[in-house]
Amino acid sequence: MPGRAGAGLVVIDVQPGLLKAYPPRRARRVVESAAGALDLLAPLGLPTLILELDPDRLGPTHGRVLGAAPGARVVAKARYDATADPESFQALEDLDRPWLVLLGVETHVCVLQTAVGLLGRGRTVAFLDDAVFSRTPRDQRVGRELLVRAGAVPLTTEVLLFALLGGRDHPAFSQVLPRLKARVSRPDDGEAPIDPGGPYDGEG
Amino acid sequence: MPGRAGAGLVVIDVQPGLLKAYPPRRARRVVESAAGALDLLAPLGLPTLILELDPDRLGPTHGRVLGAAPGARVVAKARYDATADPESFQALEDLDRPWLVLLGVETHVCVLQTAVGLLGRGRTVAFLDDAVFSRTPRDQRVGRELLVRAGAVPLTTEVLLFALLGGRDHPAFSQVLPRLKARVSRPDDGEAPIDPGGPYDGEG
Amino acid sequence: MPGRAGAGLVVIDVQPGLLKAYPPRRARRVVESAAGALDLLAPLGLPTLILELDPDRLGPTHGRVLGAAPGARVVAKARYDATADPESFQALEDLDRPWLVLLGVETHVCVLQTAVGLLGRGRTVAFLDDAVFSRTPRDQRVGRELLVRAGAVPLTTEVLLFALLGGRDHPAFSQVLPRLKARVSRPDDGEAPIDPGGPYDGEG
Amino acid sequence: MPGRAGAGLVVIDVQPGLLKAYPPRRARRVVESAAGALDLLAPLGLPTLILELDPDRLGPTHGRVLGAAPGARVVAKARYDATADPESFQALEDLDRPWLVLLGVETHVCVLQTAVGLLGRGRTVAFLDDAVFSRTPRDQRVGRELLVRAGAVPLTTEVLLFALLGGRDHPAFSQVLPRLKARVSRPDDGEAPIDPGGPYDGEG
Repeated sequence: MPGRAGAGLVVIDVQPGLLKAYPPRRARRVVESAAGALDLLAPLGLPTLILELDPDRLGPTHGRVLGAAPGARVVAKARYDATADPESFQALEDLDRPWLVLLGVETHVCVLQTAVGLLGRGRTVAFLDDAVFSRTPRDQRVGRELLVRAGAVPLTTEVLLFALLGGRDHPAFSQVLPRLKARVSRPDDGEAPIDPGGPYDGEG
Repeated sequence: MPGRAGAGLVVIDVQPGLLKAYPPRRARRVVESAAGALDLLAPLGLPTLILELDPDRLGPTHGRVLGAAPGARVVAKARYDATADPESFQALEDLDRPWLVLLGVETHVCVLQTAVGLLGRGRTVAFLDDAVFSRTPRDQRVGRELLVRAGAVPLTTEVLLFALLGGRDHPAFSQVLPRLKARVSRPDDGEAPIDPGGPYDGEG
Repeated sequence: MPGRAGAGLVVIDVQPGLLKAYPPRRARRVVESAAGALDLLAPLGLPTLILELDPDRLGPTHGRVLGAAPGARVVAKARYDATADPESFQALEDLDRPWLVLLGVETHVCVLQTAVGLLGRGRTVAFLDDAVFSRTPRDQRVGRELLVRAGAVPLTTEVLLFALLGGRDHPAFSQVLPRLKARVSRPDDGEAPIDPGGPYDGEG
Repeated sequence: MPGRAGAGLVVIDVQPGLLKAYPPRRARRVVESAAGALDLLAPLGLPTLILELDPDRLGPTHGRVLGAAPGARVVAKARYDATADPESFQALEDLDRPWLVLLGVETHVCVLQTAVGLLGRGRTVAFLDDAVFSRTPRDQRVGRELLVRAGAVPLTTEVLLFALLGGRDHPAFSQVLPRLKARVSRPDDGEAPIDPGGPYDGEG
């Protein structure tokens, strides 16, 4: 797990051209989960990179997400694997942190291929289980399984937060506490699945 | 994951004599899922082999599947493990691709035994999680687990498709796009399970 | 997987003194699943050992199970781990097959401890996922996970059957076929869980 | 698995300041599960350590849990990872048993970080799957997955109990038996999940 040495965040492809294929409630959940993770982690000041696939065709990153990461760098890419694009690969390198933590869409395409690309170049990679998404449950499940098989470490926003904090003595603790309390008091708590797309029992 | 170097597809035993033991809706889903995977991947021109178990007794491959792979070679076998039959093993060798991707029925019998046979001969094997089936949820689940334990890589049709494409610059991209859009707009999207065979909670 | 070289079956503790703690429908399912597995595999003539824990206190093996394995040897044990009891360990050795396949109750106690004992002595161990049981879903799930972690191979009755058969050319094929057909035509098919003990979502 | 050589129990942070963020029924379940595990294991006389995070702010361990472990030592800590606090680390060392078995809250924070700390120092670590908890299903699931990835062994209270007993010949057997019977006869059996926090299908 990442310790206080730190981690960089990589937000992948939270763009209208991809989300329009999602059921509306699930699309909202993608946006709220990504923005919620960035909000909760904001007091820690992690360097953040926002990647966009073919933004001329698929549009810019959703405003809620851009607003939750005001200091982030935004970089376009033309390949699903961001390490296969020289500019986005350089931007990943510029984060210069021992852990790269991925979030966004789609688990089984750009998140997976970028993780595999980074791992193949010897980087340490994690992903936020509560903030990566595919359109269908099966692609989500198999994409996640392939991420883990490839060597990416599954985290949640809270696992990452508390691993970076370590205890009450962390200087950001007092800023984090009210955000945690707001999260707990929200009705759906950011955890209940929205529109899972019909019955699903995990079998073929 | 398979890259642009390519993969061969192996369709296993989608035959009426086996499907008649399935609940009718699940049998239709087997056929639609296999044909749907072949349809979506068609623009990539992957070499395809269709295997049939004892076709004299179990009948020929379902017409929908044959129609979705017009250039495929069809070969009969008498053993559950296609590598144990000289003619079907030679046909697998003739595909001559670094990855062999299996789909069809049944996950826990012919798909599993053929995967184990290929892996034991040093070949690289994957299977389409959304297009391999057993009659019961338990056999599906344990068959899948044994495939992974043996070394076969779980993919979905979309994971494979986007890994082979890599990005918008692939020459087949423009032919793939309308097929993807048609898939998203279908009501059940090819993903919702049909007739899972009664309540099932994954426990003994 | 076990091939034609063969396997021995080990039935563990299907006794009234243990089953009386189970909900009645689940207890019936334990008996029917164990007897059903023995029935289906009977044409293959696998050597079979039936173990009983403290039969003076917990009673003899259920009659349905004894009836489905007429040639089996029955041996008592006083320890949860059958390899820790000299007489039952010798009986396991006497099976003299490359694979020992366990079924019965309870997954997380005697099945688990016997598997760990056998694996620690260098034997190859599998278990029938559809014929091992614990009283609660959680003990079943964690017991199964510990079996796999220890090195036992999960099978189902059908996975084992078709791995031993290999194809239609096996001499027992014609005797197996009507048993398979009878199994498919049964309403619950021996697969739907009976009385899982209330809602269960696999989480803490 | 731990054998008769024995294990020490470590109860983590069952405190009102943490449980107040839980739905009330789930908070009760945390307390009942931890106290129930300590009750069932009491005849074995395992050394027990109760850890408390910032007790000045989060309050003392729940009375039901303290009452179920009358001889336990209670130690405060200021870090999520108990091995990062000199006093609580020394208390863990003082347990002086080959296996340390963790229970309490939260799976994905203090239980996880303490397990990782102990494993990094070469200790053998297990956790009780039926007595560790996070507030949300996702944090519970990912926290558990990270525990196992780090090398902690999943047990249940019964798996541990029967592994330590080995058979009817254990001197504590007669004291354990009535506790087991009382457990089976309880309506919810300590196993049915209470208030899982809404629909949950394990997908993103």
